[in-house]
Amino acid sequence: MPAAAPRSGDAIFASVEHVNAELFTLTYGAIVRQLLTDLEEVDEVNKQLDQMGYNIGIRLIDEFLAKANVSRCVDFKETAETIAKVGFKMFLGVTASVTNWDADGTCCSIVLEDNPLVDFVELPDTCQGLYYCNVLSGVIRGALEMVSVHED
Amino acid sequence: MPAAAPRSGDAIFASVEHVNAELFTLTYGAIVRQLLTDLEEVDEVNKQLDQMGYNIGIRLIDEFLAKANVSRCVDFKETAETIAKVGFKMFLGVTASVTNWDADGTCCSIVLEDNPLVDFVELPDTCQGLYYCNVLSGVIRGALEMVSVHED
Repeated sequence: MPAAAPRSGDAIFASVEHVNAELFTLTYGAIVRQLLTDLEEVDEVNKQLDQMGYNIGIRLIDEFLAKANVSRCVDFKETAETIAKVGFKMFLGVTASVTNWDADGTCCSIVLEDNPLVDFVELPDTCQGLYYCNVLSGVIRGALEMVSVHED
Repeated sequence: MPAAAPRSGDAIFASVEHVNAELFTLTYGAIVRQLLTDLEEVDEVNKQLDQMGYNIGIRLIDEFLAKANVSRCVDFKETAETIAKVGFKMFLGVTASVTNWDADGTCCSIVLEDNPLVDFVELPDTCQGLYYCNVLSGVIRGALEMVSVHED
């Protein structure tokens, strides 16, 4: 039986504490703006957002394991589905889809149709190359590392 | 009739989009940590948190006015109550109490019994003087300025 089913994310999301999504979106925007001012280089901002995400992910995994009640994923495919359907739902209130698998099953894309982080966001031309939501990949990296899934 | 009643905050909070409170708490913690690293001086961090809050507040007021459906507050006392009972509930999911009014009715304290921003937070001794939640006063300052309430 797969550990993740789309419904379980909804139930878990309903059972945890919440804050207003717009407050979160604006707070995240304030971080990115601050980093752009302080670090100036877009590459440095991308790196810092990933690092912040990593620091969040290594803590957030505890909440996930405590609340999500999922069993150990048997392979990377199931891990990716669990992140997309349970993890994203539980924390951001949205689900993502997993696509673009490579032949080896070691690489895929997690696509957010509805991403609360980018509501109201307009980037000026000076921000080309900025991975605005890079915190999310950092969160996933940190969280996975705590359950012993590492990058190659 | 006062514009704010404790119940209305609950109803509004239920009607808006949400994200997980722990994600927000950890994200906010990541900001403070980042600012402490970049700015080094606690006073500078306090100032920057207030400024970030201000930038958030001048945007967040739109959501408040669109969703809260409150009528214009007749005096500062009602304004403070609306912030505490409707505003905090709507954005952070908690209510605050208004106390310590001065004789003129121009100065009060808004006290949060349950503040999601400080969950899991332990400050090292090097952070003495840090107003960890200073973003909140900035948010209030920004939001009030947009409805023409100014600091003296």
